[in-house]
This record gives sequence, C-alpha cells and structure tokens, in this order.
Amino acid sequence: MSTTSQGLPLRIVPIGHVSTGHLDARRIPPQATYAPADIARITVRAGFVDGLLGLDRYRHLWLITWLHRPDSRDTAPLRVVPRAAEAAGEVQGVFASRAPRRPNPIGLSLVRHLGTDGDVITVAGVDLLDGTPVLDVKPWFRDCDDPRSFETSTWLSSP
Amino acid sequence: MSTTSQGLPLRIVPIGHVSTGHLDARRIPPQATYAPADIARITVRAGFVDGLLGLDRYRHLWLITWLHRPDSRDTAPLRVVPRAAEAAGEVQGVFASRAPRRPNPIGLSLVRHLGTDGDVITVAGVDLLDGTPVLDVKPWFRDCDDPRSFETSTWLSSP
Repeated sequence: MSTTSQGLPLRIVPIGHVSTGHLDARRIPPQATYAPADIARITVRAGFVDGLLGLDRYRHLWLITWLHRPDSRDTAPLRVVPRAAEAAGEVQGVFASRAPRRPNPIGLSLVRHLGTDGDVITVAGVDLLDGTPVLDVKPWFRDCDDPRSFETSTWLSSP
Repeated sequence: MSTTSQGLPLRIVPIGHVSTGHLDARRIPPQATYAPADIARITVRAGFVDGLLGLDRYRHLWLITWLHRPDSRDTAPLRVVPRAAEAAGEVQGVFASRAPRRPNPIGLSLVRHLGTDGDVITVAGVDLLDGTPVLDVKPWFRDCDDPRSFETSTWLSSP
C-alpha cells in the first residue's frame, strides 16, 4: 500500500464506473468538451447513492476518474508529447499536459449533466474508456473553477 | 489495499506537498479563488521533477490533492450542509458539494501559477492545509475546463 511522506496510507475506493461507447483508447476524443454529443452513464455503487442528493441542481460536473488501464504495466513517462493545441508536438513535462498516463493516473473531465435518476448519472461530453472507475463527482462552480474569479473575488481572510 | 470492481489495486503516490500558512482547518478559505493573494509553494519530490518541464507556459493550474487529515478517523458522511453559496445551509449529497470530507478525499483547487523554479511551484489562491499531499498537477485549459466550450466545440469524431 502506498503511503504519504508521513507514512499514512492513501486508500482509494471507486464510487462507481462510467459506461461509454468507447472501447478503443485510440478513438477517444482528446478532451470531454470535444465530444459534446457523446452520452455516458455513471453507475454509482449502492453504498454511495445517498451522496447524489441535490446533484440535479448543477448543469456541469467534474468527473474524477482512474485512467490506469489493466493492460498497461509500465511506468508513466515524465516527459510527453501532448496533442492539445497549446503545445502540440513539443516535448513537455507530464504535469504540463493532460496526458492520461501520469504518475497518478487521475483524470479530470468536465461534463454536461443531463440528469440523475437513482444510481445513474447521465452526462454528455465524454472522453473516457468504457468501464473507467469513478473516484469522485463534484459540481462545477464558477466561483472556484473559473480563472476569472481570481480577478473579481471579494472574499477576505478574517483573523 | 483497495481495488477496483475488477479487483485491480488503486495505487496512489504523493508527488509532493503544499506549504501554506494555513495550520488550522477552520480558518482556511472555502475555495482557492477566494484567497487570491495567499501564496503557497508546492515542493515536488525528486523523482517527479522532470514532469514540470514547460509548466511555466501556463498561468492557471489544477492541484489535485489528498484532503484526509490524520486526526480524522471517521467515515465521510454522504449528506452534508455546504457553505458554498449555491446551496448554503441546505442538506445536500456530498457529490453535490465541494466539502473536503468525501468518500475519496480528493481535492480540486484552481490556483494562479506564479512560477516554477527547480522542484518548487509557486502559486497564489490557496485553500489547503499546510503539508497537504499533492497527487497531480495539470494545466487549466479553456478547451476542456470551461463550460462554454461545450457550446463552441467544433471537434468531430473521426472513424
């Protein structure tokens, strides 16, 4: 089991998995927002369904996923050649990219929320392989997820 | 060790940790963008520093962190009362909130990147306790992290 620098274990439990039509990694859109019409369903495990209350309030969600593929046993490289426009074709550090193979293969996907019914969240705009484990779901909040908020924030630390 | 539904282990390795002035969780800003002047430093572990090449290109970064506190041994509740404006005071599912106590206590913080020098990333706008383990760093990309991209995307699946 892996540990933090303080020797504490980091324990991860999938809360569900994604069903998509994507069975071949080479045909997956490079980012979720590039496939706005692709529908996917997240089936949440029974023990976590109570955590979905109120999700219908939000139109956009973050999916935090586990991108490691069972057929890939080698270590993720620290230098990659991203396909995103910002640095396409240039060698970059993996932390300056959104490459799926990373030291911790944690994926961050913004998706459009179409509705939640029981244990199933339906979303559009999906860049994930069928069966990808989901680690967390969070609402997208303008206040904390939009860089423009840094310019307009009026929140002040109180003593 | 935890496993996926397919029985595969989920192995997490901190790539570094955050140094902030926040030693008391009760005084932490509720979201990173609410504390735009707070400076923090991420010290990246030696084995991962090569992954920082090219990070200076990006002004805004995501920090994916591990929010579990060693003094908290109880299970995260599935129902919470968020302090964010959207649902302040209402009981919500934890996945409809950004509460730090979650089934997988994974934090997502958008920060302003002030520069990277050697193994240290300096950022502004921080909502994290001093010493929080960092699991991943990713650039913020308008194409995939801004909900407006769903409306304007021209990417099409190719066969």
